[in-house]
Amino acid sequence: MNVRPLYDRVIVKRLEAEEKTAGGLFIPDTAKEKPIQGQVVAVGNGKRTDKGDVLALEVAVNDRVLFGKYSGTEIKLDGEERVILREDEILAIVDA
Amino acid sequence: MNVRPLYDRVIVKRLEAEEKTAGGLFIPDTAKEKPIQGQVVAVGNGKRTDKGDVLALEVAVNDRVLFGKYSGTEIKLDGEERVILREDEILAIVDA
Amino acid sequence: MNVRPLYDRVIVKRLEAEEKTAGGLFIPDTAKEKPIQGQVVAVGNGKRTDKGDVLALEVAVNDRVLFGKYSGTEIKLDGEERVILREDEILAIVDA
Amino acid sequence: MNVRPLYDRVIVKRLEAEEKTAGGLFIPDTAKEKPIQGQVVAVGNGKRTDKGDVLALEVAVNDRVLFGKYSGTEIKLDGEERVILREDEILAIVDA
Amino acid sequence: MNVRPLYDRVIVKRLEAEEKTAGGLFIPDTAKEKPIQGQVVAVGNGKRTDKGDVLALEVAVNDRVLFGKYSGTEIKLDGEERVILREDEILAIVDA
Amino acid sequence: MNVRPLYDRVIVKRLEAEEKTAGGLFIPDTAKEKPIQGQVVAVGNGKRTDKGDVLALEVAVNDRVLFGKYSGTEIKLDGEERVILREDEILAIVDA
Amino acid sequence: MNVRPLYDRVIVKRLEAEEKTAGGLFIPDTAKEKPIQGQVVAVGNGKRTDKGDVLALEVAVNDRVLFGKYSGTEIKLDGEERVILREDEILAIVDA
Repeated sequence: MNVRPLYDRVIVKRLEAEEKTAGGLFIPDTAKEKPIQGQVVAVGNGKRTDKGDVLALEVAVNDRVLFGKYSGTEIKLDGEERVILREDEILAIVDA
Repeated sequence: MNVRPLYDRVIVKRLEAEEKTAGGLFIPDTAKEKPIQGQVVAVGNGKRTDKGDVLALEVAVNDRVLFGKYSGTEIKLDGEERVILREDEILAIVDA
Repeated sequence: MNVRPLYDRVIVKRLEAEEKTAGGLFIPDTAKEKPIQGQVVAVGNGKRTDKGDVLALEVAVNDRVLFGKYSGTEIKLDGEERVILREDEILAIVDA
Repeated sequence: MNVRPLYDRVIVKRLEAEEKTAGGLFIPDTAKEKPIQGQVVAVGNGKRTDKGDVLALEVAVNDRVLFGKYSGTEIKLDGEERVILREDEILAIVDA
Repeated sequence: MNVRPLYDRVIVKRLEAEEKTAGGLFIPDTAKEKPIQGQVVAVGNGKRTDKGDVLALEVAVNDRVLFGKYSGTEIKLDGEERVILREDEILAIVDA
Repeated sequence: MNVRPLYDRVIVKRLEAEEKTAGGLFIPDTAKEKPIQGQVVAVGNGKRTDKGDVLALEVAVNDRVLFGKYSGTEIKLDGEERVILREDEILAIVDA
Repeated sequence: MNVRPLYDRVIVKRLEAEEKTAGGLFIPDTAKEKPIQGQVVAVGNGKRTDKGDVLALEVAVNDRVLFGKYSGTEIKLDGEERVILREDEILAIVDA
């Protein structure tokens, strides 16, 4: 199954394990989640301006990126978890 | 009955069954609904810019698309449930 | 009495009966009202842009349209109930 | 006393009597006030755009107009109650 | 002491006495304050647009104006109370 | 230590003493603080527009200005308290 | 590991120690944190305008900057804490 994000959206595969908090546990403020890494697996055609121009994205497929743990929307592709978000929610590109 | 969405709106037919929660049951946070798939059955003429230009939509009739379960507005066409939403609420096009 | 809506506003005559809930009854979430149909009886001259251009509306008098049950403002014309709303609140045109 | 509204503001004289609710009475939702009629008694020079152009208003002095009962601001001119509001708050022009 | 307001701000001297409510008294909704009159004592150079143009103000020094009782910010010039507000908060010019 | 504000920010040195409320005391609404005076000690290069142009500021170093007591952010330069705020938060220039 | 911030984001290394409040202690309003200093370690290519132009940033690598203690997002690079924020959240450049 192939999924093409629209406009300035990208699909990312998480690279870091996500520790789960057992239900009901209180999470103190100091536990505010840090951004996590992911690998871009698909990008949209670009951001459409108010004038109708399409601006190419700065991130590309295979880029490793940093993004907020709770950014975007989780989707399931062929049984695997992916995150779909707007490029503007990506903080940085990581060169390993 | 034929329905033509206005401007950047599209009409989608849901492709996934929607499990209903019995009334009154508590839905924990972990049950946050994933986006669902649908098939585009009608599209508007395009998004109108502030200048009056009309920008063609990227999605087309018959496209399979991903969109948030609670996006848009439910309508009934000839007795069948459809969802009408703006193209911007569609996350991605699915090539099966 | 003739009423001319301003700019991008239109006046619509409801085509569907509106069932009323007896006062004080609790309305569960599943009773969220679907959009209803109406017939356009008057349209404004068009939407005025920031530059002062006037963009013609896509809906026209006599069009059957879908719009949210609680969209716009109710007015009374010659003793009859009408709804006045902006074209952007209209979801679609219905070809019967 | 002559009062000139600024830019896209207009001054309106109410044409309908306003029934008052005795203090402290509960007003059920079904009593949501309908728009009322008024007569335009003064208009500003026009709406100023971001570029500094001034766009003439569509309403003119002596027009009968429909506007929300609670729109704008009440003022007193020579002992008489008037309402000052932006043209965008006017719903329609009434041709009696 | 001379005070020059910046851009689209103006300084106004109140012309109407302001009745004060004794501390702690409840003010019912029907007591919503009407706009008051004032005299313009200073105006800024004009409103700066996003492009950097400066648009001259419509109000001028010595104009009598109507403005909301609680609009703007109170300042004290040489021991006298003045109000500094943006021109857009002024409702109308009064020709006495 | 030299500090250069970015874009349309300016640094101001307060000229009026600030009376402090002892911790825990209730401050009634009528005690709403008036704007205070300050002297500009540094200004940014100018406000950057959406197009990338830089618009020179109207305030300059050494200007005496009025600004809201709680506007901006307090910083400490070489042990002295300063306020850094955007030019738009400055109400007026005072010619003593 | 090299990290390239996107567009108008920059990465900053904190230069001031951060005193921690023991869990549960009440922090009075007077304890509002002052901005802190940091050193820029990476900058994006520039801010992208609505038209697609990219505007170079005013801050550069190695600049010492002032920014709000709680601005931006904390990330960890090679085991070290960094802050990633938009240039607009930086208050000033410090010339030591």
